[in-house]
Amino acid sequence: MTADHRREHDLLGDRDVPSAAYWGIHTLRATENFPITGTAISAYPHLINALAAVKEAAARANQDLGLLPAEQADAIATACQEVRGGRLHDEFVVDVIQGGAGTSTNMNANEVIANRALEIMGHAKGDYAHLHPNEHVNLSQSTNDVYPTALKVATITSVQGLRGAMTVLAEAFAAKAEEFRDVLKMGRTQLQDAVPMTLGQEFSTYAVMLEEDRSRLAEAALLMHEINLGATAIGTGLNAPAGYAEAARRHLAAITGLPLVTAVNLVEATQDCGAFVHLSGVLKRIAVKLSKSCNDLRLLSSGPRAGLAEINLPPVQAGSSIMPGKVNPVIPEVVNQVAFEIIGNDVTITMAAEAGQLQLNAFEPVILHSLSESITHLGAACRTLAERCVSGITANTETLGASVENSIGLVTALNPHIGYAAATDIAKEALATGRGVAELVLERGLLPADRLAALLRPAEVARTTG
Amino acid sequence: MTADHRREHDLLGDRDVPSAAYWGIHTLRATENFPITGTAISAYPHLINALAAVKEAAARANQDLGLLPAEQADAIATACQEVRGGRLHDEFVVDVIQGGAGTSTNMNANEVIANRALEIMGHAKGDYAHLHPNEHVNLSQSTNDVYPTALKVATITSVQGLRGAMTVLAEAFAAKAEEFRDVLKMGRTQLQDAVPMTLGQEFSTYAVMLEEDRSRLAEAALLMHEINLGATAIGTGLNAPAGYAEAARRHLAAITGLPLVTAVNLVEATQDCGAFVHLSGVLKRIAVKLSKSCNDLRLLSSGPRAGLAEINLPPVQAGSSIMPGKVNPVIPEVVNQVAFEIIGNDVTITMAAEAGQLQLNAFEPVILHSLSESITHLGAACRTLAERCVSGITANTETLGASVENSIGLVTALNPHIGYAAATDIAKEALATGRGVAELVLERGLLPADRLAALLRPAEVARTTG
Amino acid sequence: MTADHRREHDLLGDRDVPSAAYWGIHTLRATENFPITGTAISAYPHLINALAAVKEAAARANQDLGLLPAEQADAIATACQEVRGGRLHDEFVVDVIQGGAGTSTNMNANEVIANRALEIMGHAKGDYAHLHPNEHVNLSQSTNDVYPTALKVATITSVQGLRGAMTVLAEAFAAKAEEFRDVLKMGRTQLQDAVPMTLGQEFSTYAVMLEEDRSRLAEAALLMHEINLGATAIGTGLNAPAGYAEAARRHLAAITGLPLVTAVNLVEATQDCGAFVHLSGVLKRIAVKLSKSCNDLRLLSSGPRAGLAEINLPPVQAGSSIMPGKVNPVIPEVVNQVAFEIIGNDVTITMAAEAGQLQLNAFEPVILHSLSESITHLGAACRTLAERCVSGITANTETLGASVENSIGLVTALNPHIGYAAATDIAKEALATGRGVAELVLERGLLPADRLAALLRPAEVARTTG
Amino acid sequence: MTADHRREHDLLGDRDVPSAAYWGIHTLRATENFPITGTAISAYPHLINALAAVKEAAARANQDLGLLPAEQADAIATACQEVRGGRLHDEFVVDVIQGGAGTSTNMNANEVIANRALEIMGHAKGDYAHLHPNEHVNLSQSTNDVYPTALKVATITSVQGLRGAMTVLAEAFAAKAEEFRDVLKMGRTQLQDAVPMTLGQEFSTYAVMLEEDRSRLAEAALLMHEINLGATAIGTGLNAPAGYAEAARRHLAAITGLPLVTAVNLVEATQDCGAFVHLSGVLKRIAVKLSKSCNDLRLLSSGPRAGLAEINLPPVQAGSSIMPGKVNPVIPEVVNQVAFEIIGNDVTITMAAEAGQLQLNAFEPVILHSLSESITHLGAACRTLAERCVSGITANTETLGASVENSIGLVTALNPHIGYAAATDIAKEALATGRGVAELVLERGLLPADRLAALLRPAEVARTTG
Repeated sequence: MTADHRREHDLLGDRDVPSAAYWGIHTLRATENFPITGTAISAYPHLINALAAVKEAAARANQDLGLLPAEQADAIATACQEVRGGRLHDEFVVDVIQGGAGTSTNMNANEVIANRALEIMGHAKGDYAHLHPNEHVNLSQSTNDVYPTALKVATITSVQGLRGAMTVLAEAFAAKAEEFRDVLKMGRTQLQDAVPMTLGQEFSTYAVMLEEDRSRLAEAALLMHEINLGATAIGTGLNAPAGYAEAARRHLAAITGLPLVTAVNLVEATQDCGAFVHLSGVLKRIAVKLSKSCNDLRLLSSGPRAGLAEINLPPVQAGSSIMPGKVNPVIPEVVNQVAFEIIGNDVTITMAAEAGQLQLNAFEPVILHSLSESITHLGAACRTLAERCVSGITANTETLGASVENSIGLVTALNPHIGYAAATDIAKEALATGRGVAELVLERGLLPADRLAALLRPAEVARTTG
Repeated sequence: MTADHRREHDLLGDRDVPSAAYWGIHTLRATENFPITGTAISAYPHLINALAAVKEAAARANQDLGLLPAEQADAIATACQEVRGGRLHDEFVVDVIQGGAGTSTNMNANEVIANRALEIMGHAKGDYAHLHPNEHVNLSQSTNDVYPTALKVATITSVQGLRGAMTVLAEAFAAKAEEFRDVLKMGRTQLQDAVPMTLGQEFSTYAVMLEEDRSRLAEAALLMHEINLGATAIGTGLNAPAGYAEAARRHLAAITGLPLVTAVNLVEATQDCGAFVHLSGVLKRIAVKLSKSCNDLRLLSSGPRAGLAEINLPPVQAGSSIMPGKVNPVIPEVVNQVAFEIIGNDVTITMAAEAGQLQLNAFEPVILHSLSESITHLGAACRTLAERCVSGITANTETLGASVENSIGLVTALNPHIGYAAATDIAKEALATGRGVAELVLERGLLPADRLAALLRPAEVARTTG
Repeated sequence: MTADHRREHDLLGDRDVPSAAYWGIHTLRATENFPITGTAISAYPHLINALAAVKEAAARANQDLGLLPAEQADAIATACQEVRGGRLHDEFVVDVIQGGAGTSTNMNANEVIANRALEIMGHAKGDYAHLHPNEHVNLSQSTNDVYPTALKVATITSVQGLRGAMTVLAEAFAAKAEEFRDVLKMGRTQLQDAVPMTLGQEFSTYAVMLEEDRSRLAEAALLMHEINLGATAIGTGLNAPAGYAEAARRHLAAITGLPLVTAVNLVEATQDCGAFVHLSGVLKRIAVKLSKSCNDLRLLSSGPRAGLAEINLPPVQAGSSIMPGKVNPVIPEVVNQVAFEIIGNDVTITMAAEAGQLQLNAFEPVILHSLSESITHLGAACRTLAERCVSGITANTETLGASVENSIGLVTALNPHIGYAAATDIAKEALATGRGVAELVLERGLLPADRLAALLRPAEVARTTG
Repeated sequence: MTADHRREHDLLGDRDVPSAAYWGIHTLRATENFPITGTAISAYPHLINALAAVKEAAARANQDLGLLPAEQADAIATACQEVRGGRLHDEFVVDVIQGGAGTSTNMNANEVIANRALEIMGHAKGDYAHLHPNEHVNLSQSTNDVYPTALKVATITSVQGLRGAMTVLAEAFAAKAEEFRDVLKMGRTQLQDAVPMTLGQEFSTYAVMLEEDRSRLAEAALLMHEINLGATAIGTGLNAPAGYAEAARRHLAAITGLPLVTAVNLVEATQDCGAFVHLSGVLKRIAVKLSKSCNDLRLLSSGPRAGLAEINLPPVQAGSSIMPGKVNPVIPEVVNQVAFEIIGNDVTITMAAEAGQLQLNAFEPVILHSLSESITHLGAACRTLAERCVSGITANTETLGASVENSIGLVTALNPHIGYAAATDIAKEALATGRGVAELVLERGLLPADRLAALLRPAEVARTTG
């Protein structure tokens, strides 16, 4: 031990910790044990804040039940509030992917909060006789209830951010749906010309999809409100006094403003990662549909001359280091990639959840990592897509209109009037000769001209109310 | 054309179809085009029945709206009812994995129903002037609304079967939880001895998990009740008369007994596979947890002498072709494998959904294939696990009790009374010397004997109410 | 026991087996234990044949080493040859997805071969005193070496079939590459017009990709030639006499004609599923690229009027039940779906392999299931794509040529001559005004007309030798 | 423009760039367009170095062919060497997940190198008249050949690091295999006691697996040596002079010391991500087996009293915030999680590769991201596992020995001598009564005592040469 270090002790012996550090010996060992990603948990502020909320709630519950003197509880609470205010985050240094079911994250929090509380109480960092990371900050707790509870609170918060971003995007699509409500175009199935519709209808689907996804996401996030605080090691609540679980839940709900409930069966809740798998599945659902929408945007804007060229995406950067004037759909492309990432993360989360054994799932750290990444990247992708792409999309109305007039698919509208067989003949001849459906129908005398014109009126075939 | 064939015609020309076949030229071409899996759609009776229900509902809606004479509607309805009664399923011969977004499946249904209806009306098969597969059986419809609607109805039915099987399994676990409610054992976290619990608590988690999963499954199945019948080709309802969508929905709800609703935005509903992805995600969730439960069963029954040997699975077959007397956990093992299959199927479904383009997803056939497989295999796995494994499990009560008495983890219960630091010392010495926690505590005079005995009372440490 | 049944005995007691059945009591119990997929192993003829080859090889090795009299070895060998000739396959009735690491499959084979050999020797089925499924047919063997060895031999055979199908497809693409070698078109990057190329170059990539994939597949299949026959239960070779492993390998190599080698470390080889994971990864690679190629075919043939319409896929069936004359890219679509299935199967195989524990992977049956499905479906998809689609593709040469002449991307060819900045200006004006690149270059006097014409010569810009 | 900014110009107009920045306007726009992960490409030093190598090689090739004066080529080369020496990495600021197929990464490199080269030449940053990012640094290149080439070179380098880490781990396992070569234990199949083996045999499998995986990894990395430099935009080599591809390859090979080859078909090579999918599949294979090995380590070290307790992992940190003295297998646990991450990344890479269209795959940035993460995390995991876990593992020799003596599985060794049926009877009675196999065999007079003792000699049954 030198002047700028303090000596700490644990199960394995003594180690010197930098005097300036709020973290202690357990954190030190963890940083040595897990040099994996180089990304510390400080990169997950939602998690750090949630941990601080849990620790404050636990301290207050312990105080209520007479286990913790007011002075200590107050100091812990103040330290936790500072953390939630954004302070000391850089003291959360353990790697996000870690062994030990989150124990290192929990101990990192216990140590930082203890040392900050010691300072608040007028003591030196490391003077654990006055306030101990395990005996006091972690009192009535185990990593196995603290970590999943914090993970759930953190996830609720980050999902709120995502839902906001989805709203921004849905509104951008909806605005375009309104703007393009009268722009006729050919609908396509299996990439083949089908029947007419409006570009507004096409864009409305993207808005509707996102709204539905937002609802599903809200439902999945509800599952996050069931916590296991008070379960301690395996759900039997050993070492937590009677009334602790309810008191801690009440304080945590008050601190976070969230309607949290305690799981009925804490043994089950402590080992069950189902809610995370479920949420990840819903994120995947969103990713799938967002990716599909971006595929469409890229396809509809293909061109400028040898593509569909139905819409124009706003140029946001030069497209090519070699091809002058080329502008590429870079924003949808980045969203596609985020979608692929989320779909892969879902597999990671699935495997981590499946690997749980007996009373605990030791692999929640990678679940946290992948789930957080999915939520925050997806939110960023939605905002970027809304602001840098969708809101600036314009339509090539003339091209679109011409494709309807020129279309063979129009013949479908005549089915009920000339029959599927006759319509098929018309379609075949139109395709072979390059001629138009209307002229062929008239030439064959299948329908009088005025009747035909009425049947092929754009608003009629596009059913713009659809 | 020979005596035992009839000639049929389509867009591509003429083909001879066996006279005995209820299917026709479109089906014939499809069987030639898709020699992929060798599994015909007849292997999916839920789908065949659902298709028949849709066709009957469409016929009645067309009749209501004056598009189809009663005689034809009646004949179609009777044919459909026969199919739903189990007849003619072997006429559904197209490969389950097919191109064309399900068109071949829809045409197979149109042709079989038309030909059977022709017979009912007293005509010969193939005499389409009286009743045509496309003009009448498919009237006001498109594959693009019929196929997804049938897929949803079929899925609702098969999910009901799965939920039943999950109930059987949950009850089997719950019965064991009750049976083992007083059997003390060591709980484990990260495969290391943790603190005591009961075997009943352990089994109750499996029951609770399944009950939660059943609820989530029911929620996901609700999404299947939104149909797009009446959307026709792309959701604009072209060629379906006003009022058709509602009439068809009403008839389909009556025929199936399901509270179906028509999607508000049919263009969106026609291209959106989100509900299937969502359901598959929930099936994956179930698979993950069921696999985890089976991993536990295999681990707890490991042995007989060099394993944990806490429980005994009922022997259902000789375990080895070489090791005499060996009995293996073959039932949990087969359930694990079904879980792995379902997790893989989820990726298939995800990719198929993501690949949809513009107004349609052409890849619903593989979604049907994978989703059906997941649902039916999972149901079979649950029943097998319940009936051939869980219900016959017995506990090695003595082994379990001894492990608690012998345990170092008991020291956790003394934390609040002797402190974490002292408890850690006791644990270290117990581990190093092989001695018991209680004797060490007494030897060091940390607690009086009667107090210690009270603290270590099994029911106390296991918190059997947890 | 009735007249039409015989009584058999195993570890669990007595059961009656139909007299006509070649399978016995172990198979009976397995069919009851695993009612999962409804697909019997008889649906995997490569596996049945490989099992028979292994059993014959083992019998001959046992005979060589003096463990099995010639009469018994001969009878076993004859029975095995009959099976490999296609007989008795329907006696292989256990479900393909089964617990027990393949024990039921191995016992099914032992029983069928024993009973057929008994008949050959002039005894009644079930008269195991003369030849016993375990004591003689399974002599010196364990499921744990027989099953993976058979799986590898079966896989080698089915991969040969797949490689043949890939050759057919690669040749179809190569023929089109040759046919289209002079057809100029616009290349596209990110779906935006890029620079000119030929349609032949485009098709050549599909052929080259497949050829590379075939090479990678051959390499992966080489890994299948390392077998663990002789390992018995866990790789220590217990109960197999000295020299057995080599003798059995030699016979199996002779019977199958394959250059099989025995793994150096049999303990490792018995538990390691790495080769299956590896092969599945290569199948996934092929699926990915084949799916990409089919996406391209569908995109290039989009239209007929509102799409790219660069190529025409041969119509193989009517495309729509509602839209007359519509022809869809159903063959590429079915190939896409097979690709998605294979990618999902890879996840299943991955999870099954990861779940192995200690000396054995008990989940090889689902690996067999998924791997076989991937290989055979992929082979069918390749053949179908070649024969029903690629070989009939035609080019819309005029459309393609016009797109090059009309293209802004041509300006890229002028970069080295007028500079990236000037070229960018030209491109911007061409896009804004709809005018051509050449006329703008001339108007601005950036290049003399003859020089410009030379630079824009199609063969020059397409670098048709590329 | 203020004093501390310079004005730059591109296709979209003017923007002010900080004077101190080496990056320019294209980079600026990219940072605004892709606020996705918050991780800049500077976090991927292998990629930055590879880009610099490619740019230097291109400059020298252009110089060789008379396109670039020596002064400019020299300045570019010097700048690139500085970057490869570790300088200016923090100027590579674009987000790793980006749209545009890597164009922003390429432009970031072009700008940084141009500005540094300008300084070297004695000019101000931004004074592009003397050396232009596009016209000179990117001369004869396109993102579409530069980016994949750099990605391949970077991957080769990072794979070398991974292979080194795998060697360290394999050696650690091999050392333990040697150390434990005479420690007898029970082998297990399906978690049930099987037959005896040595702990050395068990550990040798982990070493052998890793060695095989290293070989497979080397093969996959070979595929990375095929580059498409010279392909320019789509593989036709437009704007690259004759001889450029070969010259650039030669210089790049010299600079990197790698035996690079130019792809035969550059159009194919430019769009094909097969090699990345392949490599990712091999990484997945490694992850699967490493995860299995860690599962084994955790299982074998379960306990200390209610588990298998066959081996002891070295304690590296306190295991629990609540359970005193608990030590957990945190190192294997973190490795498991890395494995799950890699398996998920493989799905991401698969989807990104499948999404390529026509002449380019625009999704290579996420492939880079996921592949790099997989390679570096896997390497870190291997080293950590070797150094912090495997090298300190000890065996509980007495426990292991007792389990063999006590075992029922020993009876397997008697099969050839007393028959499978008699052995089964012995096993059943041993299981039911708790008695030993040997005493039962003697009691029944099945074998004389000396013969029995010889047959059950440990080295005999474990076949320690296996």
